Amino acid sequence: MSTSAAPVNLTDRLAQFSELWSQKKVAALNDYEVKLAKLKGEFVWHSHEDTDELIMVISGRLTIRLRDGDVVLEPGELFVVPRGVEHCTVADEETAILLLEPAGTMNTGGAGGPMTKAAEILG
Amino acid sequence: MSTSAAPVNLTDRLAQFSELWSQKKVAALNDYEVKLAKLKGEFVWHSHEDTDELIMVISGRLTIRLRDGDVVLEPGELFVVPRGVEHCTVADEETAILLLEPAGTMNTGGAGGPMTKAAEILG
Repeated sequence: MSTSAAPVNLTDRLAQFSELWSQKKVAALNDYEVKLAKLKGEFVWHSHEDTDELIMVISGRLTIRLRDGDVVLEPGELFVVPRGVEHCTVADEETAILLLEPAGTMNTGGAGGPMTKAAEILG
Repeated sequence: MSTSAAPVNLTDRLAQFSELWSQKKVAALNDYEVKLAKLKGEFVWHSHEDTDELIMVISGRLTIRLRDGDVVLEPGELFVVPRGVEHCTVADEETAILLLEPAGTMNTGGAGGPMTKAAEILG
């Protein structure tokens, strides 16, 4: 077996970094990327005009603020933020998430600002 | 909030069905689908010529046989089967998985046969 045929263990990969609000690529699916991130605090309001965004909570608790209400995700729960929908993620405790969206999708969407950061390859 | 803005709880959704080898759609991401399935036993060798396939184990234990070796997935582990790569899934105990691939991807790829079944909307 080549090493590319190894499974991705989410817990192991999360142990490889501690930086908050930094997306780490762990797998590719066609032209989509599977990314991990650790969050604590509040992100910036933004939207992705060209794509939906899948967010799954692995540990902790995530509130996704939408303009018409909140979606709260516990571990083992996922939500797809539709394209064009403004959202803002908030985590009171450190929270680990899995993200899935097309490669090159920026974390702050069209909002920009100091928290804008390209995803990095992990490991 | 509209009901479409509710999170998808994987444990709750898995409790909604018991049928084996039947993919249940629980969310859409652009033209991709998030599906759940319960497996026990051995599937058929097949490949998907046009797409990669993401498989994540939620509970149980899954062996993905490839022509050059096995990939074994425990809960919290995922693997992307590259397009065109023959594979055969085997679960000794009942195993729950999450699948992510383009809408319309058939479970048996190009192999066909009696286990071929279109994905169904769950709930």
